[in-house]
Amino acid sequence: MPKLDLSQIPFKGGSSYPGKLAQATAGRFVQRLGDAGGLTQYGVNMVRLEPGGLSSLRHYHMEQDEFALMVDGELILIDDDGEHVMRAGDCASWPAGEANGHHLVNRTDTPATFLVVGTHTPTETAYYSDIDMMVKDDANGFSFTRKDGSPLTADQIGDDND
Amino acid sequence: MPKLDLSQIPFKGGSSYPGKLAQATAGRFVQRLGDAGGLTQYGVNMVRLEPGGLSSLRHYHMEQDEFALMVDGELILIDDDGEHVMRAGDCASWPAGEANGHHLVNRTDTPATFLVVGTHTPTETAYYSDIDMMVKDDANGFSFTRKDGSPLTADQIGDDND
Repeated sequence: MPKLDLSQIPFKGGSSYPGKLAQATAGRFVQRLGDAGGLTQYGVNMVRLEPGGLSSLRHYHMEQDEFALMVDGELILIDDDGEHVMRAGDCASWPAGEANGHHLVNRTDTPATFLVVGTHTPTETAYYSDIDMMVKDDANGFSFTRKDGSPLTADQIGDDND
Repeated sequence: MPKLDLSQIPFKGGSSYPGKLAQATAGRFVQRLGDAGGLTQYGVNMVRLEPGGLSSLRHYHMEQDEFALMVDGELILIDDDGEHVMRAGDCASWPAGEANGHHLVNRTDTPATFLVVGTHTPTETAYYSDIDMMVKDDANGFSFTRKDGSPLTADQIGDDND
């Protein structure tokens, strides 16, 4: 039925970032509401950030609109314009192709939660603002490279021990 | 900037329903967050329902995914499965083409608020569950007819005085 049974939709950790970059989002847990509800045209995720957690590396999307609504707690939205406090009810939107890299950071000592929506598109390119990395997504999955398309190297993504 | 200044985005009333049917949503006020934030791929609206208010006539979409998150207050989700209480944090999703007509009704004595997301598509058809009406939307705007395509008649949409 349309009303979702939230108790049956787990919050999952994990990251698609390569190598040691995956550590960046260790404090992020995602509940995939849209997928659970059978939606295919856009994703809707509830995201919980533990203290110190990041929503992502700072990035922007070329093809996909993105929208966030703060649900609980306090986060700092960091983008090219600076830092912006986000509390319950606050909203932000990032139209596809606008090159303003952004992420949300939890600097408090309690978890914080936001809802995020992102279009599903057959292909996508996103750029990372603070490191020389981009990601392309298509039917073959994610491909992370430098912004010129060359491979990432050990100094960028070497394992946890380097 | 991506963070929205909610104080600058008004809650507006009004309805595109023809004739007297527009009265059905007299208690509904919509804040168009996605439009204000420059999003084009889907709409994101904050919707406030006053006591007695309806989100819409009960309907389902053929081409557009729809998602709702309750933000404040209590509403009743009515669909083909019956009635479901919706309180802050509760979510519902309606995949495009699933013929389960739905709407939200405020039976309490205080306003209630929910966030709703709907895909923007070049064309759309929606069917109304409780009356003989459908709507088609395209570059020419909304067109409300009976489900067989014939015009609505005065007994359906006659003005307030009939």
